[in-house]
Amino acid sequence: MIDFGNFYQIIAKNQLAPWLETLPAQLSTWQKNTIDNRFNQWINSIDHLPNITPDVLDLLHSVTAKKHQPLSEGETKRITHLLMSLSPWRKGPFSLYDIFVDAEWRSDWKWQRLTPHIGSLEGKTVLDVGCNSGYHLWRMIGAGAKLAVGIDPMPLFLCQFEAIRKLLGNDQRAHFIPVGIEDMPKLNAFDTVFSMGVLYHRRSPLDHLYQLKDQLNHSGQLILETLVIDGEEHQALMPGERYAQMRNVYFIPSIPTMVNWLTKCGFKNITVVDISKTTLEEQRKTDWMTSDSLIDFLDPNDHNKTVEGYSAPMRAVFIANK
Amino acid sequence: MIDFGNFYQIIAKNQLAPWLETLPAQLSTWQKNTIDNRFNQWINSIDHLPNITPDVLDLLHSVTAKKHQPLSEGETKRITHLLMSLSPWRKGPFSLYDIFVDAEWRSDWKWQRLTPHIGSLEGKTVLDVGCNSGYHLWRMIGAGAKLAVGIDPMPLFLCQFEAIRKLLGNDQRAHFIPVGIEDMPKLNAFDTVFSMGVLYHRRSPLDHLYQLKDQLNHSGQLILETLVIDGEEHQALMPGERYAQMRNVYFIPSIPTMVNWLTKCGFKNITVVDISKTTLEEQRKTDWMTSDSLIDFLDPNDHNKTVEGYSAPMRAVFIANK
Amino acid sequence: MIDFGNFYQIIAKNQLAPWLETLPAQLSTWQKNTIDNRFNQWINSIDHLPNITPDVLDLLHSVTAKKHQPLSEGETKRITHLLMSLSPWRKGPFSLYDIFVDAEWRSDWKWQRLTPHIGSLEGKTVLDVGCNSGYHLWRMIGAGAKLAVGIDPMPLFLCQFEAIRKLLGNDQRAHFIPVGIEDMPKLNAFDTVFSMGVLYHRRSPLDHLYQLKDQLNHSGQLILETLVIDGEEHQALMPGERYAQMRNVYFIPSIPTMVNWLTKCGFKNITVVDISKTTLEEQRKTDWMTSDSLIDFLDPNDHNKTVEGYSAPMRAVFIANK
Amino acid sequence: MIDFGNFYQIIAKNQLAPWLETLPAQLSTWQKNTIDNRFNQWINSIDHLPNITPDVLDLLHSVTAKKHQPLSEGETKRITHLLMSLSPWRKGPFSLYDIFVDAEWRSDWKWQRLTPHIGSLEGKTVLDVGCNSGYHLWRMIGAGAKLAVGIDPMPLFLCQFEAIRKLLGNDQRAHFIPVGIEDMPKLNAFDTVFSMGVLYHRRSPLDHLYQLKDQLNHSGQLILETLVIDGEEHQALMPGERYAQMRNVYFIPSIPTMVNWLTKCGFKNITVVDISKTTLEEQRKTDWMTSDSLIDFLDPNDHNKTVEGYSAPMRAVFIANK
Repeated sequence: MIDFGNFYQIIAKNQLAPWLETLPAQLSTWQKNTIDNRFNQWINSIDHLPNITPDVLDLLHSVTAKKHQPLSEGETKRITHLLMSLSPWRKGPFSLYDIFVDAEWRSDWKWQRLTPHIGSLEGKTVLDVGCNSGYHLWRMIGAGAKLAVGIDPMPLFLCQFEAIRKLLGNDQRAHFIPVGIEDMPKLNAFDTVFSMGVLYHRRSPLDHLYQLKDQLNHSGQLILETLVIDGEEHQALMPGERYAQMRNVYFIPSIPTMVNWLTKCGFKNITVVDISKTTLEEQRKTDWMTSDSLIDFLDPNDHNKTVEGYSAPMRAVFIANK
Repeated sequence: MIDFGNFYQIIAKNQLAPWLETLPAQLSTWQKNTIDNRFNQWINSIDHLPNITPDVLDLLHSVTAKKHQPLSEGETKRITHLLMSLSPWRKGPFSLYDIFVDAEWRSDWKWQRLTPHIGSLEGKTVLDVGCNSGYHLWRMIGAGAKLAVGIDPMPLFLCQFEAIRKLLGNDQRAHFIPVGIEDMPKLNAFDTVFSMGVLYHRRSPLDHLYQLKDQLNHSGQLILETLVIDGEEHQALMPGERYAQMRNVYFIPSIPTMVNWLTKCGFKNITVVDISKTTLEEQRKTDWMTSDSLIDFLDPNDHNKTVEGYSAPMRAVFIANK
Repeated sequence: MIDFGNFYQIIAKNQLAPWLETLPAQLSTWQKNTIDNRFNQWINSIDHLPNITPDVLDLLHSVTAKKHQPLSEGETKRITHLLMSLSPWRKGPFSLYDIFVDAEWRSDWKWQRLTPHIGSLEGKTVLDVGCNSGYHLWRMIGAGAKLAVGIDPMPLFLCQFEAIRKLLGNDQRAHFIPVGIEDMPKLNAFDTVFSMGVLYHRRSPLDHLYQLKDQLNHSGQLILETLVIDGEEHQALMPGERYAQMRNVYFIPSIPTMVNWLTKCGFKNITVVDISKTTLEEQRKTDWMTSDSLIDFLDPNDHNKTVEGYSAPMRAVFIANK
Repeated sequence: MIDFGNFYQIIAKNQLAPWLETLPAQLSTWQKNTIDNRFNQWINSIDHLPNITPDVLDLLHSVTAKKHQPLSEGETKRITHLLMSLSPWRKGPFSLYDIFVDAEWRSDWKWQRLTPHIGSLEGKTVLDVGCNSGYHLWRMIGAGAKLAVGIDPMPLFLCQFEAIRKLLGNDQRAHFIPVGIEDMPKLNAFDTVFSMGVLYHRRSPLDHLYQLKDQLNHSGQLILETLVIDGEEHQALMPGERYAQMRNVYFIPSIPTMVNWLTKCGFKNITVVDISKTTLEEQRKTDWMTSDSLIDFLDPNDHNKTVEGYSAPMRAVFIANK
């Protein structure tokens, strides 16, 4: 059982209060439908983690918790084992009492690329759509956010997040809510909304953009990161059954197409702040994610192509205002 | 606008938490449907009441708030006027900084009659169904209850309650929720449930008893007060269109019938702790309730009969366990 | 699978049309939830019954279907076997091609007692609440009703009804809808509504009366049959756990109490047209209902008492107008 | 009031029966929300049209109804006036007793272009999504369809359809249901589904394609007509606020992009059977549609461009199987 009571207490008196009209019922149904053996084992892993409060907590340059006194070897082994039982870890890394959770992605690199370009998060209430393990939620808190809310429907990611939270001293500034954005009421209440790595998985990119807009307050800022292709306005790649081995990839826009879509949905001040080819150093197999990774998704003879023959993954970050 | 956020915060982490699955949506709808001129004026009256903290607060022997320094005459006049604008006051009395809100009913007398017989309220979470102005909620707090929740669908009573709350120093130990018991989920969570003056207004007394049971925790105590008639088991008066000028009076049971009903619904340890004819001193016209009262509902030639010819009001208090 | 399409076709263009707004969805859910082994076997029995059209069909004096040419012995055995597989039969009897389905109750006797007193059913659209096997539905058709609708939530009774319907030549003038009256919209559309043997099984007799009223058109007639006790106005027996071995018996009113309730609910022209003690000839064990019957529910030493010591079953028929 | 009872009767016993689980409730709500002055006037116009049965009815080559005996001049004037009150007529033409309803579009030309390419409609149950006045529904009946169902949320179009139906002799082979495709359950039941002139108005073309697929039976045929652009695979024009003065235009795909989308959604046997620039003869202002038409939407100096500078409207017809 995950207890969302702390989150309900927080939003009962802030601008997210209307969410109480739908969320508790949704999460109650979610809990009933989610209980299965695997989920119970994950919860069990969280329960067995120690209640621990870091002496040093760095969320600004990384996600790092430390004690002045190092943990015993046994304790370290036990925590490592418990965290490993929550594999695969896709987004990280986390450094917890000298245990280094080396996830598939160097999500800190992505954060570093975009953070100089976005508005200050100081005192902000922010939403991260498709937050995965919640890595960026902690970095948002590190950047001064008052409340960071992540949504993602995957139960494993919730458990990874709750495990990290416990090891960070049961920090209540970030929260993970296991819903999809389509299940949220139109809150029009967040200062900043992040959508990173989600758009190309949506059948309807425009509906996704409108959904993001519906969460922003009137002057809120959107940070959108997506796969893009080289190309002109009005071009968008729709791959066949798979793209870089991923299923459920729909529209991968060119940069001018993405700008056009944002404009169509009424966003303002649209800028592209970063364009990067994903490197084999940023996304790779580790001890914490042992199945195929980027190297296996690229054409072995030409790393500029996916195994399916499409352009290799390139990602861009767009910033815009409501 | 009434803000229920404080209540949501309280229940988010206690045994009433499942109520969050339905209540915020219901109250949001309720607020939309309730906004009318009268309601806005009442809210306005509450808003104009001063934020005031009593130096002395007695909820044990009465509902009395005092300042060491008496209010100015102007202040007293203004508060009196604002409270008068929330008339008629049916349940009281309240003594607020030397303003005596003399309601139609001496609800303190009723409290005095039943309080020696009920289980201790110390630290309890209690529910008062049909709580009217909320008079008894404050007395429950005075008797040690940790949280007193009153429900009643009437908007005026909510406003009377909120006015009193403000003058008691914005006390958050009692809360008024404007719903009917039939709108509540089966919480099975209250230590004590009061239903006073409600049963004979229900088309289905048994359903009312089951609804009360569904709010009690496994060893919870019910305090039920209702009109009764003299009579044998299996007798229950169903008056015609009116009883003592009240519409919507359905079943008025004899005492053995009431015991029988409670038994049928699975209640245990049923006892009758008080039987009282309502006197002309307990229910009467005052400056705060200026329309007809008991004297007008009785046969002028025979105070043992109502104007319709039924037995004059007699009330009994039953105590039972789930 | 029971196909309700014929019924939907009939009501699509008559005064019951608003029922289409809720019924198909309800019955679709019902079908999904009802499928179990027993139900499938009953459906199987119906499917194996022959498609047969009677040469003589009497629904006026009894429910009797005949062929000029008697069925073969094998055919008779087979049909008898299939109908037996739908036991127990509580309401009857049915005479089908010389097979006599001798149900527990002589429901024809009840029909005979009340039929002289009720308004003509000629051309009427009628509802039978708690219709059991549907015996009276066919008699209503025999009495001239244009459409007879029975409701009862029990799947076995639906199957009994459909078996009889098939053997009556797939007659489409009567229909059985497996819902409770509380699941019906307020149709205000039936000329006559029957509620026989239902009221004392309801926790709330008044709500039952209002529900019946909500099905009648503005000048419609109610025929209500219920257990009654000897007694004064304001008397109603509420038995303990069982009455004549039946569970779920709530209020058994005296006749003046029943009249009082009908009046309270706004019925007019209330009359009592029959009061009968149930006899051991009318309700008894047969080959088609082999478990305990009335004889077993009465005190062996005093047939005026039930085994629980209450007055033995007495039933009255009330007629009233909306 | 439009009575959908005839339609409910038809579907109660055919493969569309599951639609009864949602449609009557939807249409009841729709009727309540749609009643306004204009709608009442349109209904009034329909009511005043004569009940008339054509001696000659041609739905194969056109939509033409005739009497052997011509109507009187007064009758002709009256009908013309009533039909004019249902203007603007966008899709036609209809020839009714020598009254020629000359709509903005020569929808017969479009029909002529596509009809040689589609599977036989003989005995088929077909759906026309976005059916406008229902012109093509009658042509589908003319081509042998057993039942033609049109959906379109616009109340005026429903009234135009019902007016035509009445003048065609109250023909019950075609039906207009005022809902959007997103409001339909997944019927998987139509032999042929038409979507003409709809796709580019949808925020999510893929969701539209999936919705169409969900209405087709397992071997059903889709006929999809849409605006297209010249261009390569992965190109789709998203115009700014307006395209040819139309608001709410989202994706206008190239032909290979459209094929790609259909493939992505799992359609088979995809072919393009017609590509046509819309001519000024096919879409133009008439007495029955007196506001701006195509000529006004094109660049006056270059009819190959819209006033906004995009390529002038070109439309293609795609055929595919589920």
